[in-house]
Amino acid sequence: MKKPKRNIYLKMKTIHEAGEIWKDRTGTLRTAEERIQAASSLGSVTSRPIVSTVSVPHYHGAAMDGYAVRACDTFSASESAPVRLRVGESVYPVNTGDPLPDGVDAVIMIEHVESVSDSEIEIRSAVFPWQHVRKVGEDVVAGELLLPQQHLLRPADVGSLLAAGVLTVSVFARPQVLIQPTGSEIISAVRAAEARPGQIVEFNGAVLAGMVEECGAKAILHEVLPDEYDTLKGALREGVESAADVILLIAGSSAGSEDYTAAVIEELGEVLIHGVAMMPGKPVILGIVSGKPVVGIPGYTVSAIMAFEQFVRPLLYSLRGIESPAFPTVTAILGRKLPSKLGLEEFARVILGRVDERLVAMPIQRGAGIITSLTRADGILQIPQEQEGLDEGAEVEVRLLQPKERLDHTLIMIGSHDNTIDLMANELKGRDSRIHLSSSNVGSLGGLMALRRKQAHFAGSHLLDTQTGDYNYSYVERYLKGTPVRLVQLAMRDQGLIVGKDNPKKINGLEDLLRPDIIFVNRQAGSGTRVLLDYCLQQRGLLAEEINGYDQEEFTHMSVAVSVLSGRAHAGMAIYASAKALDLDFIPIGRERYDLVIAESTWPDLKMQTLLDIIVSGSFRRMVTSMGGYDVSNSGRIMGIWDGYEWKTEELKSDDGIRTPGI
Amino acid sequence: MKKPKRNIYLKMKTIHEAGEIWKDRTGTLRTAEERIQAASSLGSVTSRPIVSTVSVPHYHGAAMDGYAVRACDTFSASESAPVRLRVGESVYPVNTGDPLPDGVDAVIMIEHVESVSDSEIEIRSAVFPWQHVRKVGEDVVAGELLLPQQHLLRPADVGSLLAAGVLTVSVFARPQVLIQPTGSEIISAVRAAEARPGQIVEFNGAVLAGMVEECGAKAILHEVLPDEYDTLKGALREGVESAADVILLIAGSSAGSEDYTAAVIEELGEVLIHGVAMMPGKPVILGIVSGKPVVGIPGYTVSAIMAFEQFVRPLLYSLRGIESPAFPTVTAILGRKLPSKLGLEEFARVILGRVDERLVAMPIQRGAGIITSLTRADGILQIPQEQEGLDEGAEVEVRLLQPKERLDHTLIMIGSHDNTIDLMANELKGRDSRIHLSSSNVGSLGGLMALRRKQAHFAGSHLLDTQTGDYNYSYVERYLKGTPVRLVQLAMRDQGLIVGKDNPKKINGLEDLLRPDIIFVNRQAGSGTRVLLDYCLQQRGLLAEEINGYDQEEFTHMSVAVSVLSGRAHAGMAIYASAKALDLDFIPIGRERYDLVIAESTWPDLKMQTLLDIIVSGSFRRMVTSMGGYDVSNSGRIMGIWDGYEWKTEELKSDDGIRTPGI
Repeated sequence: MKKPKRNIYLKMKTIHEAGEIWKDRTGTLRTAEERIQAASSLGSVTSRPIVSTVSVPHYHGAAMDGYAVRACDTFSASESAPVRLRVGESVYPVNTGDPLPDGVDAVIMIEHVESVSDSEIEIRSAVFPWQHVRKVGEDVVAGELLLPQQHLLRPADVGSLLAAGVLTVSVFARPQVLIQPTGSEIISAVRAAEARPGQIVEFNGAVLAGMVEECGAKAILHEVLPDEYDTLKGALREGVESAADVILLIAGSSAGSEDYTAAVIEELGEVLIHGVAMMPGKPVILGIVSGKPVVGIPGYTVSAIMAFEQFVRPLLYSLRGIESPAFPTVTAILGRKLPSKLGLEEFARVILGRVDERLVAMPIQRGAGIITSLTRADGILQIPQEQEGLDEGAEVEVRLLQPKERLDHTLIMIGSHDNTIDLMANELKGRDSRIHLSSSNVGSLGGLMALRRKQAHFAGSHLLDTQTGDYNYSYVERYLKGTPVRLVQLAMRDQGLIVGKDNPKKINGLEDLLRPDIIFVNRQAGSGTRVLLDYCLQQRGLLAEEINGYDQEEFTHMSVAVSVLSGRAHAGMAIYASAKALDLDFIPIGRERYDLVIAESTWPDLKMQTLLDIIVSGSFRRMVTSMGGYDVSNSGRIMGIWDGYEWKTEELKSDDGIRTPGI
Repeated sequence: MKKPKRNIYLKMKTIHEAGEIWKDRTGTLRTAEERIQAASSLGSVTSRPIVSTVSVPHYHGAAMDGYAVRACDTFSASESAPVRLRVGESVYPVNTGDPLPDGVDAVIMIEHVESVSDSEIEIRSAVFPWQHVRKVGEDVVAGELLLPQQHLLRPADVGSLLAAGVLTVSVFARPQVLIQPTGSEIISAVRAAEARPGQIVEFNGAVLAGMVEECGAKAILHEVLPDEYDTLKGALREGVESAADVILLIAGSSAGSEDYTAAVIEELGEVLIHGVAMMPGKPVILGIVSGKPVVGIPGYTVSAIMAFEQFVRPLLYSLRGIESPAFPTVTAILGRKLPSKLGLEEFARVILGRVDERLVAMPIQRGAGIITSLTRADGILQIPQEQEGLDEGAEVEVRLLQPKERLDHTLIMIGSHDNTIDLMANELKGRDSRIHLSSSNVGSLGGLMALRRKQAHFAGSHLLDTQTGDYNYSYVERYLKGTPVRLVQLAMRDQGLIVGKDNPKKINGLEDLLRPDIIFVNRQAGSGTRVLLDYCLQQRGLLAEEINGYDQEEFTHMSVAVSVLSGRAHAGMAIYASAKALDLDFIPIGRERYDLVIAESTWPDLKMQTLLDIIVSGSFRRMVTSMGGYDVSNSGRIMGIWDGYEWKTEELKSDDGIRTPGI
């Protein structure tokens, strides 16, 4: 057994360099040619030009329903001098597609015929020779090139093959891709039921298999193998000896001690590339063993997907002699600054939505291990390696992960996190499958900023004014000058300290956070929860700097709850619903108002009105109530109308019982 | 048995009206819910929201390869004061993804560690708590909404399901679509080998089945049934009683006497729509039988496809609760006037290419029966019913039938038809699968006009100057003022009279065309062949008006040959290759030069250079020679360089032996 040294990407190539080397070595490879039934050739690629064997149509046929006729018999017909013709003698009834009887050369449309009797018709205008006739070979002439080589067969192509008498076609076989996941703690999805605690269900293989199928290739997903050099070597040798055209080895491609992939490829064949200047996807390995392409796919899912798209996808198409189709893209305005390392091609996931006619791209979480960064994203933005990042407002090209037309049906919510947002998103789908809610959690203040910069349709906010004890109004006045918005109450909700199940540390209130044995987890600055915490600490005369872990910041209520659940912290401030979700204990601190701050320009939008309908619906209120810690009795109530400079109290009817500032 | 009357679309609806009625009646239909393995759920649509069952990750793990450590142990480390830590006591080697050992809270990257010995490492900078750690729930928190209802599962979604412990999902079953072709002369593709003469292989069913599969539904293609009322009724009754969600009845939907479809639907259920103001696709029938959508699909292929796309495709998506994705489109400039009937939504097939930075759309054949109009087209242009047509130069939106990026790799050839053009197209694919040749046959003069209007990259031309006996030069001078081009000889080719096998009419030359028993078929005005014919007639003192059929025009050599083969005409003027292709006799009239007229702006283009490489290649010359009637000894020779105002003879080296005008 050979244990490789840790290698730290000394010879890392750029995406372009790696792509060129890869194409140079694999570009002329083709899968085997095979002969298949034309009727089931959809999605196959022709390996030879296809020539029609018959003419289409192969007889002169009626192109309309009506009567077949000799054109010369009709020449004298006019409105004033109709011509009568005897059925079966000089005219013959025909339907579209019928062969013409001998001797005739035109068809009179049924609409232009008056039936005098069963045996006689009358016409009032002439037809010219070959009118409404589908002539032999009008579509295809026998011997003509029907389709060239290296052509991907679409439904209409299949039709033209059958029509032209071509019943079998030579095509490139669909590439077979062997996918070999590795990892000692990983168990195949098909064996998930047998999983022991601590084992992780393999999912990268399923993701890659799906992508392989989307390229028109066939995925063969093997069971997971342990990270052992000899096992892996045996599997790779077997793989290249099998019918597989391409072998993908998942994980073991990073610079860690389990990095056998490169060494195994090197021993059995040749490593062309080890490490590419891209992120995610850096640890990809490209090699050739026994003439077959072998790719070491990084273990992190997002890395795996990016590496696949850069190097495997084009290969799977070129194995059948065609180009991989480009991904659809749109041009958007970047919603916030996006830093990036020079010399590294970065792929950032963004949400996309049209706000005030501009398409805005807001970056979301960037970790290569975060699979939901892809499932929640609307697009991927590529930051070229020669740039150190992109500025807010930059015009960027974004690759779409969603159908393009959905962008017009997407509501963008930026701001404070609340557990009911996902619920709203799901209810919207149920009401109108086109409407999509994309959200980004950046805290209440971040949400107001996004509204000011016209980057969101609405924000979630629960910013406490420590002077008045009221919510959001003074912040809107301060931060949204010139930006008209409406405040709509989503719910009142309970904030408090989340502590372990059965409160093992006996925490009774904020005072306990100062105990030296207590580790706290905080929310980020600018979040409403942080403002609330600071206010409560101040009221009680407690000093933040004496709290252990005050600097540890999380971005959502759920992350705070998870920190407590996992033992990383003993307490954190969050809403009751997140404690309940993870079965943790909760010490109430206060009840706060959570508002939706809706851009006035978005207010009349049908999507927004649908969302407001949902908020006031009984079913939504029941679902929210069942999450715990919410009071929905005023959900949907307009709390204020801000014209950009002052509150328009007169526009709120007094009997609505709306609370507005100063009233 | 009930025999319906011919119905002539009295109640024809617009596309929009028909779509609204159809949506109103089918929009809330859904396929059955079923529970499937998440691992094989790619392309399925969730029928319920999906909530994660575990947190991802479910342990604090290393986010980098390196050493796990307590952050506080590293705080004093600096370049000048490195810190040494004992492996196994205060630091632990970890690979990306490994769970952190108890007590540690950060990871030092391998790149920042110096190994002092196997048991000791040295670090020169501090790490902060939780640095390079993937914390529990960082990706997904147990209980969180993973995906909403009515969500189409993509590869990354499948990964997130498995990662979050969701092993089975509730989805809408793929719609099952029963496709029932009808027609007494039609035989199923699977039985093509048994076809008797005169029978046509069924292909619309295969086209529709392919389109059904592309919508993520399952096609069940039945064998062809004869056009008999009771048979059709029995089949429809069986269909709606089967598991099928949708039934498509092909043909019999036109206003002909075989129009049982509407009557059968009416008898068993309800006809909602019979006839839509669209072309092709007008005779479509939309109905409901036993609560199931039933569609009468027109018999002409292009009509069938258009009807499917308008009414069946959206239905197949809405049966699973999602919107059908929009087709990709581009904006182009219309290359020539396109007339259209008011009140009828027309779909015209076009070829597309970028000429001098403008994307040009050139309409091709329009017959609803011409399936190659779809296989050869690059896009489809929709002419709104409220317009009487579109003018040349109009900005139009074209739906793409090809990947968008291919437009940059498409060479547009407009002009005279030659049998070698398809050969060039196929060879181009073989050299570089991206390069695509789209051609439109409008005759030599039409090709020069297209060049003048910057609608083509090059033209094919063989225009005889009857004054000089030379080709193309004087036409270029007359029609391409201000448009620089180069003439390149494609081949010399034999023109003559095509007559029936063994020359049954004993035609010996042009003089015989004046015989009263001879029917001639002509080429269109503006074609080089027409010019040649007229010249030859004039030289011989023969009068065109005395030729029977001089007014019958075809657009290609092959159509002329087919006219003779089918007995529609006794003779036609065309090239030898087309006579040979159909095994007809040929009476040579003369040898002519066929040139490619290449826009100077296209000349340096790599695609054009590739095409020129092909023309001079030995393999291409051999293939052309084998077609018969071609002399390729000067193929690829530059015959002239026209700067828009004069011929640049000095730019042609004399030893090239180039013939230029006046030399």
